[in-house]
Amino acid sequence: MTDLALNAYLQRSKERILATLTDWLRIPSISADPNHAGDVAASAEFCARLLREAGMTTVEILATGTAQAPGSGRPAVYAEWLGAGPDAPTVLIYGHHDVQPVDPLAEWTSPPFEPVVVGDELLARGSADDKGQVLMQIEAARGVRAERGRLPINLKFLIEGEEEVGSPHLEDLLWREKERLAADIVVVSDTTMEAPDVPSTTVSMRGLVSFDVTLRTARSDLHSGIWGGTVPNAALVAARLVDRLHDADGRVTLPGFYDDVRELTPQEAASLAAIPFDEAEFRRQAGVAYLEGEASRSPFERVGARPTAEVVGLHSGYGGPGIKTIVPATASFKVAFRLVPDQRPERVGPAFREWLASHVPDGAQFEATPEGSVSPLLTPVDHPAMRILCSAIERVWGAAPLFSRGGGSGPEEALARVLGAPLIFLGVALPDDNFHAPNEHLDLRQLWRGVLAAGELVLDLASYKVGA
Amino acid sequence: MTDLALNAYLQRSKERILATLTDWLRIPSISADPNHAGDVAASAEFCARLLREAGMTTVEILATGTAQAPGSGRPAVYAEWLGAGPDAPTVLIYGHHDVQPVDPLAEWTSPPFEPVVVGDELLARGSADDKGQVLMQIEAARGVRAERGRLPINLKFLIEGEEEVGSPHLEDLLWREKERLAADIVVVSDTTMEAPDVPSTTVSMRGLVSFDVTLRTARSDLHSGIWGGTVPNAALVAARLVDRLHDADGRVTLPGFYDDVRELTPQEAASLAAIPFDEAEFRRQAGVAYLEGEASRSPFERVGARPTAEVVGLHSGYGGPGIKTIVPATASFKVAFRLVPDQRPERVGPAFREWLASHVPDGAQFEATPEGSVSPLLTPVDHPAMRILCSAIERVWGAAPLFSRGGGSGPEEALARVLGAPLIFLGVALPDDNFHAPNEHLDLRQLWRGVLAAGELVLDLASYKVGA
Repeated sequence: MTDLALNAYLQRSKERILATLTDWLRIPSISADPNHAGDVAASAEFCARLLREAGMTTVEILATGTAQAPGSGRPAVYAEWLGAGPDAPTVLIYGHHDVQPVDPLAEWTSPPFEPVVVGDELLARGSADDKGQVLMQIEAARGVRAERGRLPINLKFLIEGEEEVGSPHLEDLLWREKERLAADIVVVSDTTMEAPDVPSTTVSMRGLVSFDVTLRTARSDLHSGIWGGTVPNAALVAARLVDRLHDADGRVTLPGFYDDVRELTPQEAASLAAIPFDEAEFRRQAGVAYLEGEASRSPFERVGARPTAEVVGLHSGYGGPGIKTIVPATASFKVAFRLVPDQRPERVGPAFREWLASHVPDGAQFEATPEGSVSPLLTPVDHPAMRILCSAIERVWGAAPLFSRGGGSGPEEALARVLGAPLIFLGVALPDDNFHAPNEHLDLRQLWRGVLAAGELVLDLASYKVGA
Repeated sequence: MTDLALNAYLQRSKERILATLTDWLRIPSISADPNHAGDVAASAEFCARLLREAGMTTVEILATGTAQAPGSGRPAVYAEWLGAGPDAPTVLIYGHHDVQPVDPLAEWTSPPFEPVVVGDELLARGSADDKGQVLMQIEAARGVRAERGRLPINLKFLIEGEEEVGSPHLEDLLWREKERLAADIVVVSDTTMEAPDVPSTTVSMRGLVSFDVTLRTARSDLHSGIWGGTVPNAALVAARLVDRLHDADGRVTLPGFYDDVRELTPQEAASLAAIPFDEAEFRRQAGVAYLEGEASRSPFERVGARPTAEVVGLHSGYGGPGIKTIVPATASFKVAFRLVPDQRPERVGPAFREWLASHVPDGAQFEATPEGSVSPLLTPVDHPAMRILCSAIERVWGAAPLFSRGGGSGPEEALARVLGAPLIFLGVALPDDNFHAPNEHLDLRQLWRGVLAAGELVLDLASYKVGA
């Protein structure tokens, strides 16, 4: 690794970086808990200090909230260094400094906000998701400045404080700060690699379009001893709809649902197929005894490259102890369609409404309330920025990264859409790092490699042709 | 009607009977509401007084409850007159003096416990269900004694105080008082006729066998962005089961479910077919826009002579506002099978468990908890006691009664089973009397006819051959 730009910097800085991260992880910046609002603010201040120490010239805490209640959200941190001049590319780093709640606390082997190093693992809430990966980027910038005296690119940071609660104010913030946040490339620093010896990078995130469906088959619940056998049962109507949302092959039955699904390129398909898959281990991690899903597609395809219709909830009739002799009059279910490129929420939403209208029996009333939508996101594997990223990863890990697909729908889509810039993902967390679970930890070897790779990226992106 | 035994008695007693019923109806004997426990007790005392005034020689309030908490239930009233001697038939009258709750109160046109006569209707909670129909029997006994000086049969009354909460302690009471309650025939006074000009009598009640089914497909709810598309969804598994409980013809799919169903006799089928049916009015009363059920069976067959599988409740996953990106790990549903003669709960229960075992996917866990069972009940239309009842009804209404089938599962099955006596049903309430609903009322013309018919029955049952 002696030819990597930040190697010397990293060797002399490891102890300090680890101490810094440990201090940051002591701040319980749980965005979901209003009692921790002060901690999220303290975490933002801590992050701002790190960015100043890294040489960023403008560092600012950005309050978030609604038009009605400005400042009611949790603060983000913005920083910039624009010394590379208008002809150099501008890169925006995205990450977040808030963390997940810690329940169930009893399952932690050490207190979640008292970081400890066990072997090569740093154990603490937020270590992998996402403070460790944010610090990795800050240290890369600091290291390049330390080694070279300056950065070859203009660098911006947007470190959010509400990612773990669904980034409720991020899009507002992006629109408000659009000009200042403008970038040629966005580097997302909040994802995983398949394994320490299987470097990979995310190339897409799924989209989402959700509905809350309510049904009514009678004015009120009916006595099954008087009416049972003659009147429609809302629980049955809902169950039929939910059952028929998939066919026997596990495919979603909305007409045209798969029309816009972009098939994997041969290179991507080969890459997905190369990711090691241990079904027993996969099942163990999920806590399930068997797998389901679209027939003739691999689990990795199904979770990242194929759309789904997930029934999030289904409720009808009596749910208390014992029995009630009723025929339920109402039912409701929630469905979240995960979308993949090039599906669009604005096509899938109406298709679902039409499907409902044709499947709900005449005479039953229904209403479908939209519960939000996110477009899917894809950076083609042959995008110039992606090639630069892959080269940096390959030099550090000694192997070209595989291309993986993210199954979730994070705030990244808003970044891409509002800022109009391609996204690349440098993520070093590992699938078994227990993010969102007890005993979250970060593999320090991955962190050190991440600092090196992020440094290579800063240097290499200087060659990125704006508008490519 | 001059040849009816109680005609003169009735004409001179109407005013008194109406005043008595009005006083009784002022007592809000709501068994479901612990705050009204005192009122149920007062209602029992009131009923006991009426029975004493009618000439019953032993009248007793029977406390009900559990072995652990005797007296924790609401009291029943027992009365007897055994002056006809050991060779005369003994008849037990069953009814109840407790009433339904009154919600929603705002929909009542007058206060539910301030009875008013509007045209031919007596409007009050409990008027039709069941105080009016109990008083009808008490007055018939009183009238026969007034006219003849004695009764030709031994007469017993059991007037329950917990029918509207499912008779939780009735069976215990029946076993405890089995000897005292012994009868050759039980007359149930708590049912309806099809219409004032279409007299009818109930010949059967459906049985019931209920289950609470819980399912688990994963250790805990899973994030749909990480696992969605690969893991089983408990809501979907439950929906599939519920959907597949019926086939496309609305028939229950349990193997052998219909094997023990006794088809209607030609006489019964003709009788059911003769009951006037106005689908629009039926739908209006149910508050539904369309009917469902077993194909090629009429609504009256479906509700009374055919078994059903009613899904009482179905619950899985998230039900709050908005959406959660989860794949639910658990689901539950409750199903109540309504059974008809000669189905038996002890056959249907195991058939359902087998059906579940064969339909739940391998690897999903399930549990089916029994939630009680009741056998179906049938008095054949050619039973000697039934012939005596029909004759009495025909003389009063001027038309032979049609045979109808009750869709519910009341306490009658326990009466038949514990006491080992055939049941006949003299009921005069009408389907639109709003029992269990706001503005319950009793058609007084039906009440007066009921007194006459009950009187005829007391006299005619003297000829009933014990052991016939």
